[in-house]
Amino acid sequence: MIRTSTTFASPVVQAKGWISGVSFPADRPLIDVSQAAPVDLPPEGLRRAIAEAALHDPGAHLYGPVLGMPELRNEVASQFSALYGGEIASDQVCITSGCNHAFCAAMMSLTGEGDEVILPTPWYFNHKMWLDMTGVKAVALPTGSGLLPDPDLAKALVTERTRAIVLVTPNNPGGVEYPVELIAAFRDIAREAGISLVIDETYRDFHSASGAPHDLFADPDWDDTVIQLYSFSKAYRLTGHRVGAMVASSTRLKQVEKFIDTVTICPNQLAQRAALWGMQNLGQWLAGERDEILDRRAAIVEGFPALADQGWKLLGAGAYFAYLEHPFQRPSVQLAQDMVQAVGVLALPGAMFMPDDDPGGDRTLRIAFANVDRAGIGQLYERLSGLRPALSALVPNRVSS
Amino acid sequence: MIRTSTTFASPVVQAKGWISGVSFPADRPLIDVSQAAPVDLPPEGLRRAIAEAALHDPGAHLYGPVLGMPELRNEVASQFSALYGGEIASDQVCITSGCNHAFCAAMMSLTGEGDEVILPTPWYFNHKMWLDMTGVKAVALPTGSGLLPDPDLAKALVTERTRAIVLVTPNNPGGVEYPVELIAAFRDIAREAGISLVIDETYRDFHSASGAPHDLFADPDWDDTVIQLYSFSKAYRLTGHRVGAMVASSTRLKQVEKFIDTVTICPNQLAQRAALWGMQNLGQWLAGERDEILDRRAAIVEGFPALADQGWKLLGAGAYFAYLEHPFQRPSVQLAQDMVQAVGVLALPGAMFMPDDDPGGDRTLRIAFANVDRAGIGQLYERLSGLRPALSALVPNRVSS
Repeated sequence: MIRTSTTFASPVVQAKGWISGVSFPADRPLIDVSQAAPVDLPPEGLRRAIAEAALHDPGAHLYGPVLGMPELRNEVASQFSALYGGEIASDQVCITSGCNHAFCAAMMSLTGEGDEVILPTPWYFNHKMWLDMTGVKAVALPTGSGLLPDPDLAKALVTERTRAIVLVTPNNPGGVEYPVELIAAFRDIAREAGISLVIDETYRDFHSASGAPHDLFADPDWDDTVIQLYSFSKAYRLTGHRVGAMVASSTRLKQVEKFIDTVTICPNQLAQRAALWGMQNLGQWLAGERDEILDRRAAIVEGFPALADQGWKLLGAGAYFAYLEHPFQRPSVQLAQDMVQAVGVLALPGAMFMPDDDPGGDRTLRIAFANVDRAGIGQLYERLSGLRPALSALVPNRVSS
Repeated sequence: MIRTSTTFASPVVQAKGWISGVSFPADRPLIDVSQAAPVDLPPEGLRRAIAEAALHDPGAHLYGPVLGMPELRNEVASQFSALYGGEIASDQVCITSGCNHAFCAAMMSLTGEGDEVILPTPWYFNHKMWLDMTGVKAVALPTGSGLLPDPDLAKALVTERTRAIVLVTPNNPGGVEYPVELIAAFRDIAREAGISLVIDETYRDFHSASGAPHDLFADPDWDDTVIQLYSFSKAYRLTGHRVGAMVASSTRLKQVEKFIDTVTICPNQLAQRAALWGMQNLGQWLAGERDEILDRRAAIVEGFPALADQGWKLLGAGAYFAYLEHPFQRPSVQLAQDMVQAVGVLALPGAMFMPDDDPGGDRTLRIAFANVDRAGIGQLYERLSGLRPALSALVPNRVSS
């Protein structure tokens, strides 16, 4: 079967299609909480650093090493070693064209046609799409209403074809932060089974706990099991630059190098310089960003009782996302489209994060709340509070049109 | 089998390894003709345009459309329509993270595990690597000493699993330019067989013929068969920015969108702005670049008789590459490494562009002559003329070390 035919259209693209051509009144513009994307620009210092490199740094325009700029690999190794209290060497770090690219590269070094990878559900749809396209079975690990995966359940799903378990923490789409002990338990299961634990920490910099969010790297033998994925996009508002990282054994990175060389040759050079400048200069600024995101998260939690009164449930809230159970009869894909018309809110339906055979997806929505500030969250909640009557008003319109 | 284990290490990385730690005398520095990469920077106006965008264009830092900036897709559609004398619409163009990325995306929309794709040999190694990693059989179409593929031979290789024929023109590594009629003949064979013709025109802007290098797009039904790949890297010296394009049916691009969304989400935004600025402002400059490259090609041809006297043969010369048959007994992989030591020249061995079972690879070398100017080509030839005695001198050293 043709590889791209094995999977679904990009959920973000589908959702953008729902608002295409729709006009929103000036006094009630669209609230777009569909894609996790900072809407503000990188700080001016970082923009100036990029401009300077474009003008004066010859290396910014030429091919560079496939696995990334040595200076950036060194910086990641050094800062991550300090943060996690472990030993990460520069040759255990590679730079990628975003964190999705890192995931794809990791999977290519782990799997072949017909292999299996365990993903807790709700899962991140691009992970599922890549596994589909490369002939790997995504084995769903249901998490229930707490959204925390159960290591024993995962262990029971391991077969001789299983090559990895993938954790995303803080979770996309669930918003939950996996406890340190839970992450370690997954590592133990993976190691015992002789498979890899892939931990996607795209949203790490907005974790509510200070310090290390897990102790995987404190284990001197971490690299026999652990593969970490990271993104510079969220921390430094560099989504348009496509730059991320992978931390893994140097042996694995020699395999990953084949994939990166073939697909992108090397990471974008200006993006790498931007990431390096950010790591070296924006520590304090990033701390402020984290405070702001944590405040938005607090607003999500504080304001929720008004929605709870109407039958909504808050299943998870953290990093960039709130994951909600809605009280309506219609499936989430329909609800999400109706919400655009009814209240001018674009959110992604839970079904986009779930296997087709799991009805839980129909009952849930992902809200990328980090895109809107505290006042915006207030407006979002006001609109969601008025959703029931607005949906009722929508039906006759639809019938008559 | 694990996907990255199905293929070989990147030839460029392998070759860079041969010079790692080797020191070259100041009066005879390394001549590196291994990778096709402009060594000069983009013109100052383009660097300033990138810097301006970094400072003042908000969209330069944010996610953009998966298939690329509308303005750049429009510009490609409009300029390519004019150049090729055909109708290419904006929704038949997508922007990619380099031309390799475009190839991978095209193949994902064409093939599944166990399918076949026909590649003339010598082939471009990254094409072969991607096919290996995705479980597609690369079917070699030998070209012989003229380096031009035979359509009838290709036709005989088509099976029920064949999904595409891939042409690279001007050719990498061979340097030859495929005649208009030859390209059309391949299109006819592909159409008749119900498969695609993928034409990689990374080096198009340095073609020795003025005007359209083929008439594929003059066919109003081109998009039932033709997929074109392009790179902005060579034209505007943007190798470090990773930006290329694919021209194909809009239906195919909806499939390609799944792959791009999953692997890189969107192309780098500054790179797209650079490509757009280049297309709109550097037409005249690019014409001068082409003149320079054509002059280097002339230098390759004019100087060759001295090497021919020693038994070398020039199999092809054009765009960025000369493809040489060498007169030595040792296999090309050994010869290429010995050349570093003996005469300070780094070139890629033909074996890196050939199936393992084709002995032709042992007899050939690829010279990326575009990296060096006319004087540099003179020095290169001087060193190659002295290669035989230098190799003889090398052997005792090697034995004694």
